Amino acid sequence: MARHSHWEKINRVETLVDGIFAIAMTLLVLNITIPQLTSPISNLDLQNILFGLVPKLFVYALSFILLAIFWRINHSQFYYIKRFSQTLMWITVIWLLFVALVPFSTSLVGEYGDLTSAELFFTINIFLIGSLSAATWYYVTEKNLVKNDLSLEEIKTIRKMNMVLPLVSLLAAGVSFFIPSWSGITFVLIPILLRIIGGKQ
Amino acid sequence: MARHSHWEKINRVETLVDGIFAIAMTLLVLNITIPQLTSPISNLDLQNILFGLVPKLFVYALSFILLAIFWRINHSQFYYIKRFSQTLMWITVIWLLFVALVPFSTSLVGEYGDLTSAELFFTINIFLIGSLSAATWYYVTEKNLVKNDLSLEEIKTIRKMNMVLPLVSLLAAGVSFFIPSWSGITFVLIPILLRIIGGKQ
Amino acid sequence: MARHSHWEKINRVETLVDGIFAIAMTLLVLNITIPQLTSPISNLDLQNILFGLVPKLFVYALSFILLAIFWRINHSQFYYIKRFSQTLMWITVIWLLFVALVPFSTSLVGEYGDLTSAELFFTINIFLIGSLSAATWYYVTEKNLVKNDLSLEEIKTIRKMNMVLPLVSLLAAGVSFFIPSWSGITFVLIPILLRIIGGKQ
Amino acid sequence: MARHSHWEKINRVETLVDGIFAIAMTLLVLNITIPQLTSPISNLDLQNILFGLVPKLFVYALSFILLAIFWRINHSQFYYIKRFSQTLMWITVIWLLFVALVPFSTSLVGEYGDLTSAELFFTINIFLIGSLSAATWYYVTEKNLVKNDLSLEEIKTIRKMNMVLPLVSLLAAGVSFFIPSWSGITFVLIPILLRIIGGKQ
Repeated sequence: MARHSHWEKINRVETLVDGIFAIAMTLLVLNITIPQLTSPISNLDLQNILFGLVPKLFVYALSFILLAIFWRINHSQFYYIKRFSQTLMWITVIWLLFVALVPFSTSLVGEYGDLTSAELFFTINIFLIGSLSAATWYYVTEKNLVKNDLSLEEIKTIRKMNMVLPLVSLLAAGVSFFIPSWSGITFVLIPILLRIIGGKQ
Repeated sequence: MARHSHWEKINRVETLVDGIFAIAMTLLVLNITIPQLTSPISNLDLQNILFGLVPKLFVYALSFILLAIFWRINHSQFYYIKRFSQTLMWITVIWLLFVALVPFSTSLVGEYGDLTSAELFFTINIFLIGSLSAATWYYVTEKNLVKNDLSLEEIKTIRKMNMVLPLVSLLAAGVSFFIPSWSGITFVLIPILLRIIGGKQ
Repeated sequence: MARHSHWEKINRVETLVDGIFAIAMTLLVLNITIPQLTSPISNLDLQNILFGLVPKLFVYALSFILLAIFWRINHSQFYYIKRFSQTLMWITVIWLLFVALVPFSTSLVGEYGDLTSAELFFTINIFLIGSLSAATWYYVTEKNLVKNDLSLEEIKTIRKMNMVLPLVSLLAAGVSFFIPSWSGITFVLIPILLRIIGGKQ
Repeated sequence: MARHSHWEKINRVETLVDGIFAIAMTLLVLNITIPQLTSPISNLDLQNILFGLVPKLFVYALSFILLAIFWRINHSQFYYIKRFSQTLMWITVIWLLFVALVPFSTSLVGEYGDLTSAELFFTINIFLIGSLSAATWYYVTEKNLVKNDLSLEEIKTIRKMNMVLPLVSLLAAGVSFFIPSWSGITFVLIPILLRIIGGKQ
């Protein structure tokens, strides 16, 4: 059913992807705010406010790095794609829709990180991005839209990389039911697992 | 009257177009906000707040996908354009002006989706984007600014694709007078109609 | 004193320029907001609010189009530049600094368009962008950083184009002292004057 | 330990870098706001409010120019890099994380520029960006990821340029303990020092 359109110039899709990632990554910072105070505050007051921001800064760093990882994986995948189809375009658009939602999910866990529903919303968001990324790779390798010089081993490495994020998200979702505020820390597993898989190359 | 300028490098226009789309699509998410509560809330409270966001999330997804469709059509059109004229530049700028307005129109229907005037504002915005896109294609094919290898059939396919969005917008505008909150759902017709037209290729 | 650096890849400067313009043009829309109302409002209420937004929408369109004109002129200029110098880089950065300020100036005239100081701030902002653009062109043509195939006539046309914006800004600044709310309309002269100059080609 | 991936297309990394800089530089302007007043104000009132914004405008200009300098240095460095490694990718991501934090740090000094903790937060942010930039250059030259035509002299010039920003940040941090509001002015040393180093070329 995949109709291959000769209209597509893959580099313009990459520009849109890069643009949306750059903006989503930079908008994350808008979640870090100082309460607007009417009365003048002392240096010590501000110091305490800044220390109180540490959890928000951690959440900012976590989301920024997760988005960077997704961008990296997309990067690897698009490098090997030689043709674009309508279906591929639509998977990419829906994937971007969830990427652009990350600043909101991040604001949620930044504000209510101790509540299960906030963490769950965030982990489901990450899970969907990861799954759509995996679906993209599955689709292009099955439909043979990839370059010929791509070895079976490389296909499998990217496939395994794509498993890491959805699986860790599910784990983080599970953790959020018991100790919500620990859910975010679960994602630290991602770089470790990616390094193990990448190291097998 | 079209003065063809040799100044234009079409790829820089594409960069601006891609940039404005990427930003407009990512800014949509700023409309989804959690009411800033002073008193601490329970997990159940937040869960209810999140379920209450479903209409806003639907509107977010709708606008994101509509913008992706417009971007796709522009994509196809610019692929075939071989020369730029002053007039073409100005049609593109006015078109972008309405593209960049979409985050505002979306916030309007996200907040007041049950009121005719909100839905009408949104549908008129989409109608104008669609009409300017159609005008672009009409102009470049009439003034022969397109590449030579473009068949008459392809010209017509893009022309038909360009009819879909203004027509569905008009229909959605009509619906907004009777049941405002159903107006958005009308746009689901777009991918269906585009698929039918594209399938004739 | 101009040290020509072989480090510069002009296309990366263009990417930054295009990025800042795309963002500044899209951020303009954030100035158009609906007052957050706590009590439910009727369709008629919202209709009145929307009609009340017309001046803000006009200011939005004005700034969007002014930025598009500046982008266009930069476009023409960069097309002819063959080398980059430190000085050129710094003129460009300061120029971008005032470009990125436009969303703020616009919010000012959107909110207080009937006050001289708001209009003056806006027109000074536009005047500085226009003057730095003119300075860029003067600098690159004097220092011979332009391509060899550029005719003296083209140099002069762009020089004249660069005069239009600062002069009209000064006129608009003058108008703002008498009838502030008419100051914006003065800018309508720009496309007319540009068309006359461009038409002499 | 550096695994060189043949996946990387350096130009896509540059697109992300340029995008994040363009957005961070443009978001700075969101820190300049007019207090939302309910009662109508006179021209003189607004004039006073605008003069009161001068410190915020200075902070805006300072951050904008600092980001432009960092972008320039990255520019020079990436121009010479011929290969990308995993480690280089991660240094770049962490560096971008602190670049994207600048709008927040700027809002902090814009609001509380007379408090040590605000100035300290800002200078630490700039120090980390500068240090990671220096680390990037140290890493790529040590690991031989640079082009062959790069002379030892040029390597050293960029190394010295990379020293300027962290050192001036430390100085500014020191100043913030004594006269917080003078801390920002310390950064004026940067262009002077860069000019001296660059002049030795």
